[in-house]
Amino acid sequence: MHNITNVGMEYDVLRENNNIAHENYHMLKDHNIVSVDFMGSIGAGKTALIIKIAEKLRAKGVKVCAIAGDVTGVDDFTRMEKSGMEAVNCNTGKECHLDANMVHKTLHNVDLNSIDVLFIENVGNLVCPADFPLGTDYRVVVISTTEGDDMVRKHPDIFIHSDVAILNKIDIADAVDVDPEVIVRDYEKLTGGNKKMLKISVKKEIGIDEVIAALNL
Amino acid sequence: MHNITNVGMEYDVLRENNNIAHENYHMLKDHNIVSVDFMGSIGAGKTALIIKIAEKLRAKGVKVCAIAGDVTGVDDFTRMEKSGMEAVNCNTGKECHLDANMVHKTLHNVDLNSIDVLFIENVGNLVCPADFPLGTDYRVVVISTTEGDDMVRKHPDIFIHSDVAILNKIDIADAVDVDPEVIVRDYEKLTGGNKKMLKISVKKEIGIDEVIAALNL
Repeated sequence: MHNITNVGMEYDVLRENNNIAHENYHMLKDHNIVSVDFMGSIGAGKTALIIKIAEKLRAKGVKVCAIAGDVTGVDDFTRMEKSGMEAVNCNTGKECHLDANMVHKTLHNVDLNSIDVLFIENVGNLVCPADFPLGTDYRVVVISTTEGDDMVRKHPDIFIHSDVAILNKIDIADAVDVDPEVIVRDYEKLTGGNKKMLKISVKKEIGIDEVIAALNL
Repeated sequence: MHNITNVGMEYDVLRENNNIAHENYHMLKDHNIVSVDFMGSIGAGKTALIIKIAEKLRAKGVKVCAIAGDVTGVDDFTRMEKSGMEAVNCNTGKECHLDANMVHKTLHNVDLNSIDVLFIENVGNLVCPADFPLGTDYRVVVISTTEGDDMVRKHPDIFIHSDVAILNKIDIADAVDVDPEVIVRDYEKLTGGNKKMLKISVKKEIGIDEVIAALNL
């Protein structure tokens, strides 16, 4: 969030975002689409995870599309397309997060009648996306062991606002001197012990089915 | 940057930031302090790099202090203090980046008469810090191989606004399937081939002296 003098404007921006998120939610529900917002840090493996889940869902006959959100460029979008999945690009220009209005506009480029599941990959950032719900059924936060063991302590908001929390790259935890259990404990302490953080490795295909189950896909 | 309706306000915020950055610059110059803003992604190794450089400078008799910027908590600050270096904490609360005013206020907690070098560790984020100069002599961007090979393409602004660009964790590039030369080439293309990206590993102590030389420390 930017520190603007007129605090009222911040609330106006967030309220307007939530109004449009509400519209997005009903637009997707009217088309029986299950939607997931993947938030998380840069390089946490959001794109790779989306591609992997989409592969598994396609094998079950589920029709998936993803919106690839980034500040600029088409890297994630191109990776998704090359994997054989349907994808739409959404560049924010300067913004460090997607907002409901950007997603609303992008939804006009998605054939909502032809898909069952919509994944939205947010911009790599553990701070601001937390404040901007997009109107999805689920909000997921993805971090990876390479970021250190202090991610939950440093960014509590995004973990509190997420339905599912995922720790990726557990296969290289030793190589980067990180104990995944420290992160898991911080998360359980923050969320009152009611929710489990999913420990996965997209590269080694560990825990993907647990993510799919957690999202009821 | 947040997409606020009144674009004029964005410019006002940035202009006000630059005015205060100018004050910071002169305040530091009046005390003969060399200052460096370390920007970069989450988990790129900014704290570890600052600690390592500070160790080497202290061995040469240079007096160093760091401002540890984070949204919340004291993790980086505590790591710095434990390493034996002087440090001051600066929590942004909700902001995804430091701004010149936060730094200005924090400088009141630093004994400017007793230090030669000031390091400022920005919040982990490759987007917004680019827009908010803090008044330092140098702006450095730190990324790591674990974030993928597309970081320069995805976040050109911060590389353009930095004096020195550093690629950390080159020792585990193979383990994360990333070719450092792709990143280096993107950077050289973006900056017109005039600047070299420094390839380092803080953990393996590779390239630290090159960073110190690039900052004329």
